[in-house]
Amino acid sequence: MRDNNVISDAVIKRMPKYYSQLKLLDEKGVSKVSSSTLANMLGITASQVRQDFYNFGGFGQQGYGYDVKNLKKEITQILGLDQTYNMIVVGAGHIGRALAGYVGFAKEGFEIKAMFDINVTDSEYNGVPIYHTSQLEKYLSENKIDFAVIATQASAAIEVANEIVKLGIKNIWNFAPIDIKVPGDVVIENISMSESLFVLSYRAKNRN
Amino acid sequence: MRDNNVISDAVIKRMPKYYSQLKLLDEKGVSKVSSSTLANMLGITASQVRQDFYNFGGFGQQGYGYDVKNLKKEITQILGLDQTYNMIVVGAGHIGRALAGYVGFAKEGFEIKAMFDINVTDSEYNGVPIYHTSQLEKYLSENKIDFAVIATQASAAIEVANEIVKLGIKNIWNFAPIDIKVPGDVVIENISMSESLFVLSYRAKNRN
Repeated sequence: MRDNNVISDAVIKRMPKYYSQLKLLDEKGVSKVSSSTLANMLGITASQVRQDFYNFGGFGQQGYGYDVKNLKKEITQILGLDQTYNMIVVGAGHIGRALAGYVGFAKEGFEIKAMFDINVTDSEYNGVPIYHTSQLEKYLSENKIDFAVIATQASAAIEVANEIVKLGIKNIWNFAPIDIKVPGDVVIENISMSESLFVLSYRAKNRN
Repeated sequence: MRDNNVISDAVIKRMPKYYSQLKLLDEKGVSKVSSSTLANMLGITASQVRQDFYNFGGFGQQGYGYDVKNLKKEITQILGLDQTYNMIVVGAGHIGRALAGYVGFAKEGFEIKAMFDINVTDSEYNGVPIYHTSQLEKYLSENKIDFAVIATQASAAIEVANEIVKLGIKNIWNFAPIDIKVPGDVVIENISMSESLFVLSYRAKNRN
């Protein structure tokens, strides 16, 4: 693998797309796939596919196509999906509960162990216990948690992030529609549903 | 406003971020904001903020700062958030229900009117009726729907997209982790939670 520093964000963001497509192909029993078929699935060029894979060593011979199972396995490892992760969710509202209810992430190795909220209305949701946020420090000292999800309102998100980082969390998945600054050794990935919806609304309004 | 064609995706994707920050500032009673404060909130340069706004005419004088209420109003209009939209959700699973349960989108004018699923286990969720997908054609012929959300499994998403486009839907918000091709007059915005999670997992594994 080339130095991670030189792999662009655009390439990294396409890797999960390859993974999704390869999973579908594998489920359908397809054993070989060409770069042009993958390119077509992702809406990019075959040359781009080969360039993307070159960042990680190439994955097989051009002209013969890629072995689907092998390529899926390689990308599984690259994405870190060959292991399991324990997660907590801070904010047990609709988004937090959707995450706790969704079995897809657990299938990929991401297990939600607990949710936290400032207003605990139920003790659990879909088998995931819900605790008051005042329990965060105790819980994190007693349990090995790899990822924390921030699913609070925008107004609370920065405070929550500061607290969990202080308590040792190094990987954050942020659903609050606000950019959160974290120390250099903390990884944060933002996903904002409202931002995505507003981009759609903009494009709908400015349709050519 | 300059020709929409020349406004880059990166600029468009930042507009909802400005909107979120301006909403927070307005809620806090802040009346003026400088480009450098906004830049700091978004993690970009003040020059970038001014360039972004220049695409839409500028919004006020450099040096005096921007009027928060006015800038929020301008961006509200640019994003098409000054009107209401009727939405349906296809796929009444955890994601569909989270969307139906979340009041934030309705507050911004996006109202979920109905959900559709191939397996209807409840007649409604949070006041939103759930119908069988076989009712889509009838429903769409009788109701004016502006946006459709695809919240199905990846394997069903393309078929669903083809059907709703055939039935006249022009704006799609896709939560399925698969790229969907649509005709040129249809706008689609993809938001994939699993892709975002896998990017986080990649970055966590390849932390410097």
